[in-house]
Amino acid sequence: MAIEGKDDGGAGGRIRLGMVGGGEGAFIGAVHRLAARMDDHYTFVAGALSATPEKALRSGAALGLDPRRTYGSFEEMASRERRLKDGIEAVAIVTPNHMHAPASAAFLKAGIHVICDKPLTTTLKEANKLRALAQKSGLVFCVTHNYTGFPLIRQAREMVRSGELGEIRVVQVEYPQDWLTEPLEQTGQKQADWRTDPARSGAGGCVGDIGTHAYNLAEFVTGLDVTEICAELTTFVNGRRLDDNVQIMLRYANGARGALWASQVAPGNENGLQLRVYGTKGGFHWRQDNPNYLFYTPFGKPTQILTRGGAGATAVAGRVTRIPSGHPEGYLEAFATIYTEAAAAIRAARDGTRLDPAVTFPTIDDGVKGVAFIEAAVRSSAKGGAWTKL
Amino acid sequence: MAIEGKDDGGAGGRIRLGMVGGGEGAFIGAVHRLAARMDDHYTFVAGALSATPEKALRSGAALGLDPRRTYGSFEEMASRERRLKDGIEAVAIVTPNHMHAPASAAFLKAGIHVICDKPLTTTLKEANKLRALAQKSGLVFCVTHNYTGFPLIRQAREMVRSGELGEIRVVQVEYPQDWLTEPLEQTGQKQADWRTDPARSGAGGCVGDIGTHAYNLAEFVTGLDVTEICAELTTFVNGRRLDDNVQIMLRYANGARGALWASQVAPGNENGLQLRVYGTKGGFHWRQDNPNYLFYTPFGKPTQILTRGGAGATAVAGRVTRIPSGHPEGYLEAFATIYTEAAAAIRAARDGTRLDPAVTFPTIDDGVKGVAFIEAAVRSSAKGGAWTKL
Amino acid sequence: MAIEGKDDGGAGGRIRLGMVGGGEGAFIGAVHRLAARMDDHYTFVAGALSATPEKALRSGAALGLDPRRTYGSFEEMASRERRLKDGIEAVAIVTPNHMHAPASAAFLKAGIHVICDKPLTTTLKEANKLRALAQKSGLVFCVTHNYTGFPLIRQAREMVRSGELGEIRVVQVEYPQDWLTEPLEQTGQKQADWRTDPARSGAGGCVGDIGTHAYNLAEFVTGLDVTEICAELTTFVNGRRLDDNVQIMLRYANGARGALWASQVAPGNENGLQLRVYGTKGGFHWRQDNPNYLFYTPFGKPTQILTRGGAGATAVAGRVTRIPSGHPEGYLEAFATIYTEAAAAIRAARDGTRLDPAVTFPTIDDGVKGVAFIEAAVRSSAKGGAWTKL
Amino acid sequence: MAIEGKDDGGAGGRIRLGMVGGGEGAFIGAVHRLAARMDDHYTFVAGALSATPEKALRSGAALGLDPRRTYGSFEEMASRERRLKDGIEAVAIVTPNHMHAPASAAFLKAGIHVICDKPLTTTLKEANKLRALAQKSGLVFCVTHNYTGFPLIRQAREMVRSGELGEIRVVQVEYPQDWLTEPLEQTGQKQADWRTDPARSGAGGCVGDIGTHAYNLAEFVTGLDVTEICAELTTFVNGRRLDDNVQIMLRYANGARGALWASQVAPGNENGLQLRVYGTKGGFHWRQDNPNYLFYTPFGKPTQILTRGGAGATAVAGRVTRIPSGHPEGYLEAFATIYTEAAAAIRAARDGTRLDPAVTFPTIDDGVKGVAFIEAAVRSSAKGGAWTKL
Repeated sequence: MAIEGKDDGGAGGRIRLGMVGGGEGAFIGAVHRLAARMDDHYTFVAGALSATPEKALRSGAALGLDPRRTYGSFEEMASRERRLKDGIEAVAIVTPNHMHAPASAAFLKAGIHVICDKPLTTTLKEANKLRALAQKSGLVFCVTHNYTGFPLIRQAREMVRSGELGEIRVVQVEYPQDWLTEPLEQTGQKQADWRTDPARSGAGGCVGDIGTHAYNLAEFVTGLDVTEICAELTTFVNGRRLDDNVQIMLRYANGARGALWASQVAPGNENGLQLRVYGTKGGFHWRQDNPNYLFYTPFGKPTQILTRGGAGATAVAGRVTRIPSGHPEGYLEAFATIYTEAAAAIRAARDGTRLDPAVTFPTIDDGVKGVAFIEAAVRSSAKGGAWTKL
Repeated sequence: MAIEGKDDGGAGGRIRLGMVGGGEGAFIGAVHRLAARMDDHYTFVAGALSATPEKALRSGAALGLDPRRTYGSFEEMASRERRLKDGIEAVAIVTPNHMHAPASAAFLKAGIHVICDKPLTTTLKEANKLRALAQKSGLVFCVTHNYTGFPLIRQAREMVRSGELGEIRVVQVEYPQDWLTEPLEQTGQKQADWRTDPARSGAGGCVGDIGTHAYNLAEFVTGLDVTEICAELTTFVNGRRLDDNVQIMLRYANGARGALWASQVAPGNENGLQLRVYGTKGGFHWRQDNPNYLFYTPFGKPTQILTRGGAGATAVAGRVTRIPSGHPEGYLEAFATIYTEAAAAIRAARDGTRLDPAVTFPTIDDGVKGVAFIEAAVRSSAKGGAWTKL
Repeated sequence: MAIEGKDDGGAGGRIRLGMVGGGEGAFIGAVHRLAARMDDHYTFVAGALSATPEKALRSGAALGLDPRRTYGSFEEMASRERRLKDGIEAVAIVTPNHMHAPASAAFLKAGIHVICDKPLTTTLKEANKLRALAQKSGLVFCVTHNYTGFPLIRQAREMVRSGELGEIRVVQVEYPQDWLTEPLEQTGQKQADWRTDPARSGAGGCVGDIGTHAYNLAEFVTGLDVTEICAELTTFVNGRRLDDNVQIMLRYANGARGALWASQVAPGNENGLQLRVYGTKGGFHWRQDNPNYLFYTPFGKPTQILTRGGAGATAVAGRVTRIPSGHPEGYLEAFATIYTEAAAAIRAARDGTRLDPAVTFPTIDDGVKGVAFIEAAVRSSAKGGAWTKL
Repeated sequence: MAIEGKDDGGAGGRIRLGMVGGGEGAFIGAVHRLAARMDDHYTFVAGALSATPEKALRSGAALGLDPRRTYGSFEEMASRERRLKDGIEAVAIVTPNHMHAPASAAFLKAGIHVICDKPLTTTLKEANKLRALAQKSGLVFCVTHNYTGFPLIRQAREMVRSGELGEIRVVQVEYPQDWLTEPLEQTGQKQADWRTDPARSGAGGCVGDIGTHAYNLAEFVTGLDVTEICAELTTFVNGRRLDDNVQIMLRYANGARGALWASQVAPGNENGLQLRVYGTKGGFHWRQDNPNYLFYTPFGKPTQILTRGGAGATAVAGRVTRIPSGHPEGYLEAFATIYTEAAAAIRAARDGTRLDPAVTFPTIDDGVKGVAFIEAAVRSSAKGGAWTKL
């Protein structure tokens, strides 16, 4: 996807994409559409954008969809699109969590590749079942743990793999926000409403919405397995039905130790996702809100500021970089990279060609791990913060 | 363009866009295409991507253009597209500077809206002539001074206008880079090659390539007129034919004083565009490389960190914001905003509708001012750093 | 101690100070002497600077002490100085931890005020015994939890007290270092040697040396009581006899939750003490390595940068500020503030005058709490990370 | 002055110090006393602290001076102290600028070493005359350009000298403040009062008070000579009698170009002294308000964060460092270093010993250069911003 090839979507044949969810008032649907569009690998042609029919139609019209391909339900969409000659090849699932499993299953059964938001499902049982289905289908299944799309996160992962940090000892990861400091869900705000509703979110609130991103990021970068966790899920806001703050201690298989903090009630934090990793030979530090810099310290030497696309950037980062260093890329670009990587896999599947081994995106396996993490955290906390195996 | 309306390109009818320049090995062409695509207001359908015919064809193919609409010259493209029923409605000019004027003129004459890279032309005479042509045509003419697309830059401008800073006294603006610290143009690097060539760049090197961005940004935000400048243009690298560092002192009509520094030879600076403005009631500070924060100090009170989309963000910033605060937007988003604003003007022209007065983008007037600035700087420096009227 | 009164040491009569420990090769002794000198409230006149007699003499000479007041042991010093007409009024104990209790006791018994480094003792039993002795004596007993001397830490504390943050919910405190990433103690480095030796340090390594500072700082600022902790003490470096990394989850009496991380093996961290506190109404963030700034966010409003001595600084901070804002004060100034505050208490005791209630310094009660924390952490970790009452 | 020797003042025999100015309500006097005390090389024994007799007495008493050595005028002090057996060996001159020359001269004539605040005098003529006197006397004459005391500034200077930056091309130095944004002098505030009074400050306001610090810092670090300047001195506040903002372009003898900005009317800037230097091989960046970090970029490599006392610190910085890296030193420590370096010179003079060539402090030559700079800036500005030789 380096600068030259950024536009090859056009030449390579754009992938026909549908979407479930993401209609009026949604947030993440618009992000997915923009991400799909950025590198020109997809063309958005069909949607079941809302469970409310009029809303679905209105949303489709607002997005320029052909009204005949604006569906009232994902079941209808899956069933009709599979029969169209130019039916969708891939679908983006951007509904509240509880719909991820049924919608994904419907499209897998229809032979359509799936790009699903996280967390994968609301229970581990469902997640495992969905994975079995996906594996059987042979289709591409991408879960949008979008922070893995940042160039310097990929470079950080490569540095760990190549041993630049030595053996990893300590992992500090956190994702604080402040938007739920007050009971926003009681005002009818749509995002707050479903995210604090166990029926739609699952058993995890903060831990499921953002804790799982933090967990995934740490795992993606370090490549280490967490074996046990000790979690405290707290609900600070009166009347809220799910946790809004979580502290977790992590034990890794290799003996490393970690801490994860996620919060929705920490005033002054917007989306403060932050990762720090320390090993026998060095350490590094990265923040999502200024993501074009990686602070890397080889032990005993000065800290280096590695920049996206700049001096010290490696091929693995350059591959997913669009513009020169010093010009910031952000959240949407990283999200788009996930879509672009998935496009490569979808094309390879479609065309029967070999997939470039450099292509990297979170799969259903990552999705299952995320749900396992959420369930273990809920279980640990329910037992008073007991150490719990993953 | 707020979250909801981000995708209205589809519904509103995408604008058919062509491009001059931006073929293989180019940098800014890919940026323009991505910017045009981001909010879905354009569809890219034709190009004269290179002056070398084979390159033009190869570039068009790589971008998925219809070979019949891949042209060998901009003249051919202007002449044919005007006659097509679904010919381009707008063209992006992304060639080296010396081609801006003739290409723009050709498309204006063909009744096609123009989005042109900066600096507008290589001489002020040409710029004025082009402006006359544009005015006569009644077409939209946008010059991509892209930094005016950042939400917090728009908020900063609004703060000055509404008097939050009081009367402006001091303006410090700078744009340091380091990529030309060594004679890169002698290695054949394409970007360095034409940017250091007076025949293609015009009389200004660093001052024309980035000094003009700094100048435009300061003017956009403060709304103040510079009346006189004192400039030192220096060429530090042996054999280089244009300036690679520029120091300028600025006198404003209202009595304010300013300093502008641009450099291509300042190691450690990637794209360090930075603006600081101080008035009788307060001051602020903004950097392009971490553009989601505006440091604002009402005199006598603590400095506030205003964030894009966050607490303290105003409607004028919200209007051009895509994602929640704490998730960084960057260079491409700001660039896309210019395209999206221009799209609104193009649609209003096409449909004969009233243009939302909030729509803001740099026009040919800004382009002319930029060229006037470059010429004045060159003149001042040639006279040994003499104060020179603008 | 505001600017005007900074020098009142001279006028008020300097306090005669002795020191135990702090001879050749020591680190913290020199810091204590400088801190005592800074505001001119003490005159350094006697020392038992080393347990090795020749070293004690050499160190005393190097510091300009009268050789007759350079002692070979603290017992000798306590016993002689108490009988001198101009004997020391206060003593600074800056030995390795295991000597704190016996040395402090000796001087208390001699009627001499004590300023003792932290942790107070190596066991809680000893700490309680020493406290009883101190209480009985009526003497001043200051424990140098020096980070409580920073002006903005005092302001932060005042903000919590006055309710600006509302009810506290989350506390994140950390103190990472990297100097023990490799087995430095095996090279004979004096600081590493005793700090990793249980006989001299006590049962806590990292947790005792710096974890206790982090714990004290959080408690000082929030005023909240920790009721239970869950601790993981890890020794990463082979052959090391004490922990070099500690993760702790904290439960507060009011229902707040916290996390404490301290490490000596985190490359890139020099002395990264950092405190973040979040409540129902706001949050703030402070770092020791750039301590003149407090990032404060009233929920729903922009983050404010409160500066030491600048706009937004309160009287409680101004009282312990020496120079104008924008001129950085640092570690030594904060340390000196502890000495200066203790001087006020010592003078009040000496002169029988009323102590200004604004005077604030860590006492033996804080010291006892620190030791209780260390013991609880060691106990929790020994039980596999079990929740443990404090 | 490394950690071990920090206290050698005691052993080496403290230097008896007097002070002119610095009584009640003064700012910089207290800083000088603290700086003199920090490393224990001086003992403060006499003062002519105010021109108002009662104030002088009261100030002396408040500082614990012997009333017989609290003088009503500097003349009296110079004349009496020279005859005392234990009279002062050195004097600190901390009056408003116009008194520097007569007071310095009086003490030089009395055979007493001088430590004088900057600017040296109010006219270049006076400065040259004073230099002649100082040279003839053979006494130590230190001018407190205190920012040269920062460890990383010394390291930066050494880096330039050793060629790590290659040939210097660009120097950007600035010192913005905001405290005079409004007419504070009209409120009777003492600091503002004399600093805006030509009779006491000399012909330069902002340029003399802080511009001269910026100028000195750039010269100290780069070692380059400025040959010509083009200056704009502006008075923004109505009724103010001296400049409160200054923009200057600098031409260096080696062809380098620079810009200097100093302001007292830039809201949000407390003491924002900042230096950036760029050469053919690299560049660096340093700020006074967070002075323990030097951002150094070898061209084409990642930026390194050099820390005071940390990895990458050199001996020249270590020599003037008191505490470990990560524990911040600040303004007072840097100021104290100037005093400590001067003490070495005074002792060498007193004892007839060889002065360690590493000892570095600003002398009367630096003071004269500073005054020459001020005069040239005033002259250039008076001629409408004409290029003016230094």
